[in-house]
Amino acid sequence: MSIQVQEPYGLARRLRLIAITDSGLAAPRRVVDVVEAALRAGAPAVQLRDKVLPPRDLLPLARRLCALTGAAGALFFVNDRLDLALAAGADGVHLGPDDLPVAAARRIAPPGFLIGHSADDPDAARAAVAAGADYIGSGAVFPTSTKADAGAAIGVRRLGEVARCVDVPVVAIGGVTVRNAPRVFAAGAAGCAVVSAVMGAPDPGRAVRGFLRAGAARPTP
Amino acid sequence: MSIQVQEPYGLARRLRLIAITDSGLAAPRRVVDVVEAALRAGAPAVQLRDKVLPPRDLLPLARRLCALTGAAGALFFVNDRLDLALAAGADGVHLGPDDLPVAAARRIAPPGFLIGHSADDPDAARAAVAAGADYIGSGAVFPTSTKADAGAAIGVRRLGEVARCVDVPVVAIGGVTVRNAPRVFAAGAAGCAVVSAVMGAPDPGRAVRGFLRAGAARPTP
Repeated sequence: MSIQVQEPYGLARRLRLIAITDSGLAAPRRVVDVVEAALRAGAPAVQLRDKVLPPRDLLPLARRLCALTGAAGALFFVNDRLDLALAAGADGVHLGPDDLPVAAARRIAPPGFLIGHSADDPDAARAAVAAGADYIGSGAVFPTSTKADAGAAIGVRRLGEVARCVDVPVVAIGGVTVRNAPRVFAAGAAGCAVVSAVMGAPDPGRAVRGFLRAGAARPTP
Repeated sequence: MSIQVQEPYGLARRLRLIAITDSGLAAPRRVVDVVEAALRAGAPAVQLRDKVLPPRDLLPLARRLCALTGAAGALFFVNDRLDLALAAGADGVHLGPDDLPVAAARRIAPPGFLIGHSADDPDAARAAVAAGADYIGSGAVFPTSTKADAGAAIGVRRLGEVARCVDVPVVAIGGVTVRNAPRVFAAGAAGCAVVSAVMGAPDPGRAVRGFLRAGAARPTP
């Protein structure tokens, strides 16, 4: 029996940009089309996020996105639902404060399955990592209209505190744009997770390249 | 490596009555207290059903019910969410039309994990069994106010058609009471799944004993 070990450096690199889906922001384009454009531009990770459709309707989309990301060498995550993530063959799941606790998800998930967790302060981040989180999503860093329940923005200073207190990649989420992404990377984030900045972009590929340039300029961890 | 085989006869017997939780109907009593009373009276199965609380808040309740049912030798199911069911250590999950498809759930679930699926006609029941369902929940058999989206009642005649077309236990759901339970068993159902008839009963133990008597009188499969 061999124990699978995560590769923290490789993972940080692959989380430089997580393009999160939103069918409303993608419209009139299909989510699949925007994701394909993002992947062609080099997006290293995609997260399926949909608070409306039931799991039975989401599964075909999840499987399609899983195939597209896999073919592009990108990671594929599902938001909230571990069972949907496993059924789709995703690389991982992103869990928020209402979802299954990380420790419970870790016990169900197969070895090597990636689990991200939201944490907007150092204590919450340390607890999530102790429970088995592979990466932390921290925010909202800037004010955002995409997520109604995101709470007050934490700012890049707090983001930096979170990034320094754990040894897993910390991904900045909430109001991150190509314009402010350099500040996020400078604060110590391994990457950005964005919804509107890619899904709502007139040219998603251009947005992706902008984020990747910002990330390439960051100090190597 | 040994392959776990289901025991269809044992399962039918253990599905004679599924007491489904409802915190509103249980109030002012706690769900746990009503379930304990039902288990003391011999309820062979309990299903956690809650469309309001998020998974993080449901998990402690699910684990508590899992421990109580296990100690009583009863089966424990979780409605809708396979990941919550697995995290709680439940014996199975009940999947509805909006949930993950049975085949997808079967691939994730460990051997021996029970999967139930809703089906209100023979074709849907056959498809669910072909996909790997261990039992079928069929209804609403009678008009019910518990489930707003239950649709028109299918009646005991259709219930009988469903029961005859598959070789797994068929459990009648929707408006089933101690009073009409004999008709349900006579139609060929292996058991009844009830919400208000136990959770809303002034004396849940008495209701459970009533259902078990009705089930004991049915023709042996």
